Amino acid sequence: MATPNHPFLAACRREPTSFTPVWLMRQAGRYMEEYRKLRAQHGFLELCKKSDLATEITVTPVEKLGVDAAILFADILLILEPMGVGLEYSKGDGPVLHHPVRSGKDVDGLKEFNVETELSYVYESVKKIRKELKNKVPLIGFAGAPFTLASYLIEGAGSRNYVHTKRLFYSAPEAWKRLMERLAKVIGEYLNCQIAAGAQAVQIFDSWAGCLTPNDYEQFVQPYTKAVIDAVTPGVPVINFSTGTTGLLKNIRAAGGDVIGLDWRVNLDEGWAAVGHDVAVQGNLDPVALFASPKEIKSRVAEILKRAAGRPGHIFNLGHGVLPETPVDHVIAMVDAVHELSAR
Amino acid sequence: MATPNHPFLAACRREPTSFTPVWLMRQAGRYMEEYRKLRAQHGFLELCKKSDLATEITVTPVEKLGVDAAILFADILLILEPMGVGLEYSKGDGPVLHHPVRSGKDVDGLKEFNVETELSYVYESVKKIRKELKNKVPLIGFAGAPFTLASYLIEGAGSRNYVHTKRLFYSAPEAWKRLMERLAKVIGEYLNCQIAAGAQAVQIFDSWAGCLTPNDYEQFVQPYTKAVIDAVTPGVPVINFSTGTTGLLKNIRAAGGDVIGLDWRVNLDEGWAAVGHDVAVQGNLDPVALFASPKEIKSRVAEILKRAAGRPGHIFNLGHGVLPETPVDHVIAMVDAVHELSAR
Repeated sequence: MATPNHPFLAACRREPTSFTPVWLMRQAGRYMEEYRKLRAQHGFLELCKKSDLATEITVTPVEKLGVDAAILFADILLILEPMGVGLEYSKGDGPVLHHPVRSGKDVDGLKEFNVETELSYVYESVKKIRKELKNKVPLIGFAGAPFTLASYLIEGAGSRNYVHTKRLFYSAPEAWKRLMERLAKVIGEYLNCQIAAGAQAVQIFDSWAGCLTPNDYEQFVQPYTKAVIDAVTPGVPVINFSTGTTGLLKNIRAAGGDVIGLDWRVNLDEGWAAVGHDVAVQGNLDPVALFASPKEIKSRVAEILKRAAGRPGHIFNLGHGVLPETPVDHVIAMVDAVHELSAR
Repeated sequence: MATPNHPFLAACRREPTSFTPVWLMRQAGRYMEEYRKLRAQHGFLELCKKSDLATEITVTPVEKLGVDAAILFADILLILEPMGVGLEYSKGDGPVLHHPVRSGKDVDGLKEFNVETELSYVYESVKKIRKELKNKVPLIGFAGAPFTLASYLIEGAGSRNYVHTKRLFYSAPEAWKRLMERLAKVIGEYLNCQIAAGAQAVQIFDSWAGCLTPNDYEQFVQPYTKAVIDAVTPGVPVINFSTGTTGLLKNIRAAGGDVIGLDWRVNLDEGWAAVGHDVAVQGNLDPVALFASPKEIKSRVAEILKRAAGRPGHIFNLGHGVLPETPVDHVIAMVDAVHELSAR
């Protein structure tokens, strides 16, 4: 299917656009009634694995919100399931791995698997979504970054301090290297399968990199994120997303990506200057700001657009995902404000 | 009691010292057997309120670790108890406030109280600790910063996204202002009472400021933290501590303090340059690094000292508190490494 030059894709390439494109992380999620209804009837994994459901969930917010890109409905941990770590999406507590990786032996015990066949349900969804979207907006595929996935593999669940993760790279750097190389390889293949199925851009989520020192990022993370990004099919824009990483922005830039994600903890102009104006940026409204009044939201959108200064290569987004209790009409107000205030 | 020019106090004033002084946040805490034994016999509030126990807990790590300062054993939330918000230290889950503040009416319903009499147990501890320390090392008093205390008052417990807190300043800025002014006033009085009782420096903990945008910090937080710092008895060094605030460092500096806390998410030299070399800095080892081998710890200490470049005004510390499972001998190895490697 041919890809017209959508504003989102143009902005990824820092080409001028007639307005600033906008989408939201977790734009398909619990804050939306349509999603909650489906979720009440199906388990989370089922929503990811049944491509008709994943398609419906992906497409609904595009029409409802008027955003400029769709993002595949899936989860960063799906790729860990075929590794035999006992992934379970438990109710309320978030996902858990029953067999976390804590040693070199555990690393070597991770199952090898065929990324194309074992995760084929994801590519099925991508194909159906592309068909459903009828090229109105492009589709973004995604994967977790090696560090964020390694942390999940090692901690076995969400973590506050990442003690097991850091202890592995402090005390068993060779095991860490093997784990990260393995992850980088499968993540790269996974993204390219999504692209082959029709994804027109990909985002790499390094949601937890913000717990790291710049040195640890540079030594233990950067080479593997870079390997993933270098492996992505040429010509497909890559968004390198992280949060809480204001002190690491130079390293994150060095890891690569056509677009660098900025969160709300840094002013957009300062973050853009830190990563360099020769790369596009995505961000950076505080997700909590969507709980403010539409008037206040508009004023905050204006502030961010002012800092972007009309420079080509700005994709408007939140600094992290939409929160579950967010009012839908506030999200729509934000999208409308971006389009209205950025019209050139 | 006269205060000799201890290295810690000299460093707060950016005077040259013969080695880099070091202490640790939560150096008296769960990682230490002596503390766990006392905690098994007494409730947490009891440990804070019985000045003999608080004194013992404060002094023990000074002798055991060889650090260059003591920090009062207490809790940032003690100041909220007389406000009538139903503070309870529940087992395991952390502290809870049974009557959180969610509106202007709630703000106005907070009890007025006499900071000198209602928290006199804290000042009793300060006096006993000073006596016990015999001027071997100085004693640091402390309080929560207005924002971090306001967040606790509003959320009623620890929080991930601070939705209630931000919603209050978005939607009821006048109520927010009244709350922050009230907090700034009592915090300033509280610190000055600690100083009158013998505290030789004070640290203001803005542990949660890292959730804010630079604009929100500047508008809704900075004036009140500044009011606290401006109110502190002249001549007593103030440490302005926060975490996750790499993008806010200029604003944090503008709020004031003789010493600015830096966490491990920024390189010490870059953080120091951001706040300016005309102020001292404290930090910035990752608390998780204490789980590495003593050899690795030493190498990380060396790296931080190298970035400090022998410039007067560096106080070595972690970027946040000692974690509960930290091996005590690793903490001692860190303190020894700082002293050995920084000897001039």
